[in-house]
Amino acid sequence: MSNKISKIGVFTSGGDAPGMNAAIRAVVRACTYYKTECVGIMRGYEGMIEGDFEQLDARWVGNILQRGGTVLKSARSKEFRTPEGRLKALGKLRSEGIDSLIAIGGDGTFTGLHKFHQEFGIPSICIPGTIDNDLSGTDYTIGYDTATNTAVEAIDKIRDTALSHNRLFFIEVMGRHSGYIAINSGIAGGAAAIVIPEETMSFEELYKILGEGEETSKKSNLVVVAEGSKIGDAHTLAKKVAERSSYFDIKVTVLGHLQRGGAPTYFDRVLASRMGIAAVEGLLNGKSDVMVGIKDNKIVYNNFDIIMQNHHEIDEESMRIAKILSI
Amino acid sequence: MSNKISKIGVFTSGGDAPGMNAAIRAVVRACTYYKTECVGIMRGYEGMIEGDFEQLDARWVGNILQRGGTVLKSARSKEFRTPEGRLKALGKLRSEGIDSLIAIGGDGTFTGLHKFHQEFGIPSICIPGTIDNDLSGTDYTIGYDTATNTAVEAIDKIRDTALSHNRLFFIEVMGRHSGYIAINSGIAGGAAAIVIPEETMSFEELYKILGEGEETSKKSNLVVVAEGSKIGDAHTLAKKVAERSSYFDIKVTVLGHLQRGGAPTYFDRVLASRMGIAAVEGLLNGKSDVMVGIKDNKIVYNNFDIIMQNHHEIDEESMRIAKILSI
Amino acid sequence: MSNKISKIGVFTSGGDAPGMNAAIRAVVRACTYYKTECVGIMRGYEGMIEGDFEQLDARWVGNILQRGGTVLKSARSKEFRTPEGRLKALGKLRSEGIDSLIAIGGDGTFTGLHKFHQEFGIPSICIPGTIDNDLSGTDYTIGYDTATNTAVEAIDKIRDTALSHNRLFFIEVMGRHSGYIAINSGIAGGAAAIVIPEETMSFEELYKILGEGEETSKKSNLVVVAEGSKIGDAHTLAKKVAERSSYFDIKVTVLGHLQRGGAPTYFDRVLASRMGIAAVEGLLNGKSDVMVGIKDNKIVYNNFDIIMQNHHEIDEESMRIAKILSI
Amino acid sequence: MSNKISKIGVFTSGGDAPGMNAAIRAVVRACTYYKTECVGIMRGYEGMIEGDFEQLDARWVGNILQRGGTVLKSARSKEFRTPEGRLKALGKLRSEGIDSLIAIGGDGTFTGLHKFHQEFGIPSICIPGTIDNDLSGTDYTIGYDTATNTAVEAIDKIRDTALSHNRLFFIEVMGRHSGYIAINSGIAGGAAAIVIPEETMSFEELYKILGEGEETSKKSNLVVVAEGSKIGDAHTLAKKVAERSSYFDIKVTVLGHLQRGGAPTYFDRVLASRMGIAAVEGLLNGKSDVMVGIKDNKIVYNNFDIIMQNHHEIDEESMRIAKILSI
Repeated sequence: MSNKISKIGVFTSGGDAPGMNAAIRAVVRACTYYKTECVGIMRGYEGMIEGDFEQLDARWVGNILQRGGTVLKSARSKEFRTPEGRLKALGKLRSEGIDSLIAIGGDGTFTGLHKFHQEFGIPSICIPGTIDNDLSGTDYTIGYDTATNTAVEAIDKIRDTALSHNRLFFIEVMGRHSGYIAINSGIAGGAAAIVIPEETMSFEELYKILGEGEETSKKSNLVVVAEGSKIGDAHTLAKKVAERSSYFDIKVTVLGHLQRGGAPTYFDRVLASRMGIAAVEGLLNGKSDVMVGIKDNKIVYNNFDIIMQNHHEIDEESMRIAKILSI
Repeated sequence: MSNKISKIGVFTSGGDAPGMNAAIRAVVRACTYYKTECVGIMRGYEGMIEGDFEQLDARWVGNILQRGGTVLKSARSKEFRTPEGRLKALGKLRSEGIDSLIAIGGDGTFTGLHKFHQEFGIPSICIPGTIDNDLSGTDYTIGYDTATNTAVEAIDKIRDTALSHNRLFFIEVMGRHSGYIAINSGIAGGAAAIVIPEETMSFEELYKILGEGEETSKKSNLVVVAEGSKIGDAHTLAKKVAERSSYFDIKVTVLGHLQRGGAPTYFDRVLASRMGIAAVEGLLNGKSDVMVGIKDNKIVYNNFDIIMQNHHEIDEESMRIAKILSI
Repeated sequence: MSNKISKIGVFTSGGDAPGMNAAIRAVVRACTYYKTECVGIMRGYEGMIEGDFEQLDARWVGNILQRGGTVLKSARSKEFRTPEGRLKALGKLRSEGIDSLIAIGGDGTFTGLHKFHQEFGIPSICIPGTIDNDLSGTDYTIGYDTATNTAVEAIDKIRDTALSHNRLFFIEVMGRHSGYIAINSGIAGGAAAIVIPEETMSFEELYKILGEGEETSKKSNLVVVAEGSKIGDAHTLAKKVAERSSYFDIKVTVLGHLQRGGAPTYFDRVLASRMGIAAVEGLLNGKSDVMVGIKDNKIVYNNFDIIMQNHHEIDEESMRIAKILSI
Repeated sequence: MSNKISKIGVFTSGGDAPGMNAAIRAVVRACTYYKTECVGIMRGYEGMIEGDFEQLDARWVGNILQRGGTVLKSARSKEFRTPEGRLKALGKLRSEGIDSLIAIGGDGTFTGLHKFHQEFGIPSICIPGTIDNDLSGTDYTIGYDTATNTAVEAIDKIRDTALSHNRLFFIEVMGRHSGYIAINSGIAGGAAAIVIPEETMSFEELYKILGEGEETSKKSNLVVVAEGSKIGDAHTLAKKVAERSSYFDIKVTVLGHLQRGGAPTYFDRVLASRMGIAAVEGLLNGKSDVMVGIKDNKIVYNNFDIIMQNHHEIDEESMRIAKILSI
């Protein structure tokens, strides 16, 4: 099969994540190594439709390994959701001679590529690049390690001021459908309580944890809240606690988009490098309609269908750990 | 006069700032050097009223130089605003044999100490510790350098994602009455526009700056907004721009309390060390009712009255620089 | 079995590693959770012999989670290698009522505890705390993730200056018997070549890689060298290259002990927390003479014998990756 | 005079320093603001002789503000020291239409430009970019603030391990002729002793300071040594102490080139921005053969002659401070 692949198009799509550039670089260098051409598609599906392409070589990806964001840029594309949009994209790819695709992004990105693959059969592989770590089929997504460290560094700074004032802080971290960043930055940040989308803790239970702190004269508290919390975001929870008790001097910080940026950690750079190479090798070996993943530190390829139908669960062990530590 | 001072009480009050611990350490070590006793008053005026004291020596302040926050803690005290509260505090100080005071904090802290000094004549010196750099009588306050760097590091991360998506970001930094953090983190962060309390830029003018970016196809923009902005905070400004134009994909990040924490920069540690020593030496040399400051890299002592009646202006040069750079 | 364990002694020994404090905290909190007493043994085996003990509780381990180093301190002990020394240590433990031990450290630490256990049968569990990641029986040791990131951050800074001057840099990282830090910081830092103790690359082969760079007019090069390199340390290699060719402007940086310090990453904090809890639970469940490890993200317990007889190999995949990327 | 300047050539030379890119960006943006052309001369005098020029505009300097190193690169040039070399350079500048020069670098850079100016009269201004802060005529040079913070962060990490082991560390920082980085990173890092080129402390005096630590059972010590130390570098001093006493467990770390890299601090970015603009405005206002400086937070222009004949002294106050704090 491998003789079919001679020009790979690579693009990033969806929210950016630290390590995407390391993945792009690895794709390009693997192409050079395997004497395959590589074309960068700018701004995701939008650039595919417009034919916004860049010839990529080792020089083009020089000195990007350590940078946050994505040099190929990212954008949302409404047009690609229409059959006409996808046909236009196909035309541009054919004109350019691109015969296979590597997408770096999250589940929205994958859904689009899966559809495109079903319609036109172009060999396609996805690389999971999203800080949320919410994709099944891989233990880690690119950007998650960096984002969690960014959250922990912010929590460390907030703890300085929390301890100086005996305050209660609600800190909101990213994770609309996934509590990965929250649970691990919460454990690493010494949170008194952690609120995640996956868990069924009620507000009463949360309040009781804080109240227990009060009784035991534990004076400083940090509560880490995933943005997808089912019992209210950080501002809402802070308001509800304030209404119940005047004991606490409460502050809220929403970390927001700074979690997406920054130089990637070694872990994300190495993960991205491995996945970038694996994506190229996968295409050359005839794989398609799959996502590269890492399981128990080994590269795996999973069908899109399977990835899309499952959620990356948080193990109960993490929640148990959090509970013991916050005693 | 110096023979009167034999036991100095030191405390932190108001919002904490990185470098306060370095100042405390310097006060203690200077006391040791000058063979003067030093007592820590916990939780500011609150601890003074309660007699919450700690004997301080070199060991107690070991390994705190690099830590954010304040090991003496800080709190607000309503009671100290009453004559009864202040009398109670005086009693506790006398019982402990404390004959002079060093306060580390901002203008609220100084106002309290000034009143206390007027009533009871206890020798008192203030050290400016606040991230806002909003005190006249000193070129720099302790914590400002660190907080501005923290803001810039956050802006750098947000720029990664802004550039990847061609987005417009409104980033709110601290500074209720002062634009110091905003103007300097804005220049250093490459902001397209900077909104500060001191300036009279209207929303129309701001919008025009962003619009010019649109015309010239400059695709990414960061706007840094001081929390004390007169034309609306970051969320408000973002909303107003969104109502006017659908051109921009707008996001908002409020940096909040993480600007208060973190290990202080070398500048804040050295500044705090110099000021801590200068406060002790000032008391021993008979100075009182003054704030230690730094002017043109030299230690100065200014009367409280003068400090309180003036504002630390932002020089027009900074605004001019910002304008040239954002071209 | 669990009724035998009522007072656990915990200590750190050997070189310190970031995350040791998080492990100590987790041991103490798990003891509180399981209503077991916990005593800190200061300065490793040295403090055990001297009876230098501290009663540990949640307050004692407050605010240490994020700190590098070890609050229990570490030291080498010649005396513990003698039968008399170990007998003395046993006596002190008995006087204090300590009936079980948790050691945090590397293979030297484990060897001592293994012998102690063989002689006196005291229930003992080890936690792997060493930046080198050189222990079999666990995928990761505490401190390795942080140390590798510290190395990468340093490499990033050196790359700035290397690129500005077209220089060749030899950067020496820790790892006397293990190339883990070197291979992963090398991949993440974009090294042209990586020299590790496990590999059999000759100086000629290394020189050829650099020379190829020369031919292809690649002007900047970073070579990462593990301190345990079999073909010479960074200074030696730099000298040998300089003798062979005047083409390169060569500089050397030995990162040294700064790799041991710093606030631990989220990964090391969570790993240390899990292992600390697992060590306590292991003892309470009757395990002894084992090391806690993590394999495929699950806690495992391995016998000391097995740990000591094996080396933690670097997988060939990593070396393959490094080769493809440095093309 | 200003009508003479229509095309400015800008270059970096000598050792790189963080903030150089911010200065380049400011020069380019000021040129745009004042409608003057700007040409980048690559690799300093070497590129000037070769005619290695780049047309610079706002786009070219986009997203470089936060990067260490210099995008214009730097190199040493033997040829520029010869009259023939300088004549060649002049020819290339004339062909390109460059009528004035801005150099960013240290004293070596300035000496070359001063000579060039004397010979050919081309309007020339220098911007002080060197981490050593060793230039008279300015309170701060670009890169010094960042380098000192980098040194302090490294010292903080080493302190973690020093405290865990009761060790004595000798840490060597940059500064061949100047103790600025050493004295300020030493104060900020809590050093027991600081060895700088400017001071006359003998080895005996240094040893006595450490010995006093021994007597007073202060168990951990950091000694910061500037590379230009007159009594031996860090390795030499460590060896001499070890020969004298077996009391200390001594380690050495030479920070080296990592001090040159990294994202510049806000201070260096703002300083570089101000100086870049001031250099352009200076040329346009007819100034020449001067160095831009900052004195008491105001821009100044000093003649090269004056700069070259003086040394930037360390004030005695700093040494006094260091002594009081290390008590």
